Amino acid sequence: MKKTNGKDLVKEITLDDIKKSIGGKVVFGACVHKVRSMSGFAFVILRTGGYIFQSVYSPETCKANIDDICEGAYIRIVGEAKEEKRAVYGVEITLLDFTVLSKPEAQYPLHVSDRKIGCPIETSMQYRSVALRNPRERAVFKIAEGVCGGFREFMIKEGFTEVHTPKINAAGAEGGANIFKLEYFGQEACLAQSPQFYKQTCVAFFDRVFEIAPVYRAEKHNSTRHLNEYIGLDFEMGFINDMTDVMAMETAMLKYVVEYLEENYQKELKILEAKLPKITSIPIVTFFEALDILGKSHKQADLDPQDEIKLCEYAKENWDSEFIFVEKFPGRKRPFYAMDSKEDEKLAESFDLLFRGLEITTGGQRIHDYNELVSKMERYNMKPEDVGAYMEIFRYGMPPHGGLGIGLERLVMKLLDLQNIRQASLFPRDINHLDP
Amino acid sequence: MKKTNGKDLVKEITLDDIKKSIGGKVVFGACVHKVRSMSGFAFVILRTGGYIFQSVYSPETCKANIDDICEGAYIRIVGEAKEEKRAVYGVEITLLDFTVLSKPEAQYPLHVSDRKIGCPIETSMQYRSVALRNPRERAVFKIAEGVCGGFREFMIKEGFTEVHTPKINAAGAEGGANIFKLEYFGQEACLAQSPQFYKQTCVAFFDRVFEIAPVYRAEKHNSTRHLNEYIGLDFEMGFINDMTDVMAMETAMLKYVVEYLEENYQKELKILEAKLPKITSIPIVTFFEALDILGKSHKQADLDPQDEIKLCEYAKENWDSEFIFVEKFPGRKRPFYAMDSKEDEKLAESFDLLFRGLEITTGGQRIHDYNELVSKMERYNMKPEDVGAYMEIFRYGMPPHGGLGIGLERLVMKLLDLQNIRQASLFPRDINHLDP
Repeated sequence: MKKTNGKDLVKEITLDDIKKSIGGKVVFGACVHKVRSMSGFAFVILRTGGYIFQSVYSPETCKANIDDICEGAYIRIVGEAKEEKRAVYGVEITLLDFTVLSKPEAQYPLHVSDRKIGCPIETSMQYRSVALRNPRERAVFKIAEGVCGGFREFMIKEGFTEVHTPKINAAGAEGGANIFKLEYFGQEACLAQSPQFYKQTCVAFFDRVFEIAPVYRAEKHNSTRHLNEYIGLDFEMGFINDMTDVMAMETAMLKYVVEYLEENYQKELKILEAKLPKITSIPIVTFFEALDILGKSHKQADLDPQDEIKLCEYAKENWDSEFIFVEKFPGRKRPFYAMDSKEDEKLAESFDLLFRGLEITTGGQRIHDYNELVSKMERYNMKPEDVGAYMEIFRYGMPPHGGLGIGLERLVMKLLDLQNIRQASLFPRDINHLDP
Repeated sequence: MKKTNGKDLVKEITLDDIKKSIGGKVVFGACVHKVRSMSGFAFVILRTGGYIFQSVYSPETCKANIDDICEGAYIRIVGEAKEEKRAVYGVEITLLDFTVLSKPEAQYPLHVSDRKIGCPIETSMQYRSVALRNPRERAVFKIAEGVCGGFREFMIKEGFTEVHTPKINAAGAEGGANIFKLEYFGQEACLAQSPQFYKQTCVAFFDRVFEIAPVYRAEKHNSTRHLNEYIGLDFEMGFINDMTDVMAMETAMLKYVVEYLEENYQKELKILEAKLPKITSIPIVTFFEALDILGKSHKQADLDPQDEIKLCEYAKENWDSEFIFVEKFPGRKRPFYAMDSKEDEKLAESFDLLFRGLEITTGGQRIHDYNELVSKMERYNMKPEDVGAYMEIFRYGMPPHGGLGIGLERLVMKLLDLQNIRQASLFPRDINHLDP
């Protein structure tokens, strides 16, 4: 009878492995990223999941025949590792032999081995699985991994519990027109616009929770800053004094994420020539102060994209911050569950965080008292039964709490100075793209 | 101008914090879990996000009045921490004062403070936000967090990249009847039945990837082992020799997860009286060998739930393993992308992992050669255009690869010996439950 023991795990080769093998043999699988033929020899550039290694082929030293490979072929190589200062990472591999594992049916339609893919975003969407083979394109998603990794590590350290809440929700729970609807065994259901109700529910038993999960908005925007399916980084925390506790938590988290990226993703940050922000503290202005800065009337009820750009420029010039919090928005533009401000019930204890000209977060303090929520819903012409089981969490008691949601792709886009949010999504969903 | 600096983060109290404060003051927010009135004093059991602390109220030592609180109220307490061997964790808090933060509108309809909630699953589903306030009920989801945490840590250590792939997919991509359909800007779309096509695509540029994300199955089952939305733990790896490399990776991962739980979740394991499996290696039988063990005809094309239970009993008795791999299933019961077995093309390089009587994983080696895939699809009466952009990844080259998917809730259910999979889902989605 066979067993899985005694079997070594197949390993992914790392730069460290190769450096440790200098002067000795290395064996690993890779994609032929590029072949540069010279007179009498060739450079065979090998792409692994994390690296681009330079190898040298010569008919004198290599048993296999270079005519058997092409760009895009997958091979298993046997080589000798040596130092070579002119190569990336300072190492080079002399090919002694290779086996062809598979060959492509067609040539890449894009310049995969160029430093930059250099095609319009639409072409890169059309040939998504090819475009992402470009080391710079894929590096974006190592950074996205790092943002999630840093976020998660920080949250766990601060006593938050990671939760998974359902994305098929009862219809109309949070309202609004931008909802993807579906039929759920004869009932009308919708895709979660946020984990709002569920993460609040979790505060009732975990005090503080976070979630990294897809979020759905059926907006018909076709802009450089909207996706119809994106990853939300959400957290919700109980026992806050006011929403500045949430803002302080976000500031500390973002600082942590930047340090986490600097520590673990240097290779990708270099490929992407990323300039990470320095975060010490983040300035906070009220919505009305923001309008004053913009020279606009207090009658305006929300910020538009141009306002966001100008406020960030202002914060950079005056406070040397690439982030700025805007708080206390007019309540009528905020959801019904936002707590009213004590100083003016027309304002909500709600905030946005802007970063490099773009809103990346909406958050705030939520109403936790059952009767206060019922009376606010009356003002909004809503009935408790409109929100399903949501009222029940307040009926049985909730601590004061607040939280926020961050759009992962927006944060990554701005961290890396990408021009289009689609560049920060592996397989973007927009009004025109559903496949791949 | 306000800034977020200089503001301390609101902390969640831990047992360590209290132990360090023995003889001194502690201040923290908590829920009144239970009040046990004695003659002249009362035990006030405090529930925080992670703990149940015992505190003692006496009118002589506490400024606040105990008549102001009830079970389910949220309070901020000031107390003195002291050792008390008879209390859980060996610590007790003498209440010096408290402030009421919020009071519930109604009494809990369930026995939240009992050791076990003791109500039928249907009642616990109806009052979900109440049931989960029971420490044993919520502990399940700390274990789920730990399973994901261990899985993720292992995968990253092994050089896998964490990805996020879209859950709104082009209709019919993977086929089958159990699909939730929705309209996507005038096109027919469906919810992902698995990240299969996308994780394979990612192998083209990251070699090995994993994802933790929701999976949708519109199955009309109303059983103790099916959910219509669940969390899939998926991985996919390139450069495998055959599917035993995938099985070896899963074995090592499960071993890691068990150790991770033992190291980080002792408190919850104790509450749940969990008996974690010992994993050294996992036996592998072929599908036909499995039928022989069961005394069944080789004409049977798949295993049924009773077969799974019996095979696990057999593995436990004969090989002292609570896990058993079954490999080389008849191809006609496996998806078109499964690689045919070399020894018999009617068999697929596909496996299941059974654990304590339940299938928790399906995996295998996939076809990586474009022409082999085209010819297999012909046998399945499929056309390349049926699968959208999927064929493109093979056209431009793929290494040999394989992977698997694990149902998180099934794994947690079996790890904790739960009787119904709904107990392992925060907000279960089944044919009758869409809210909360």
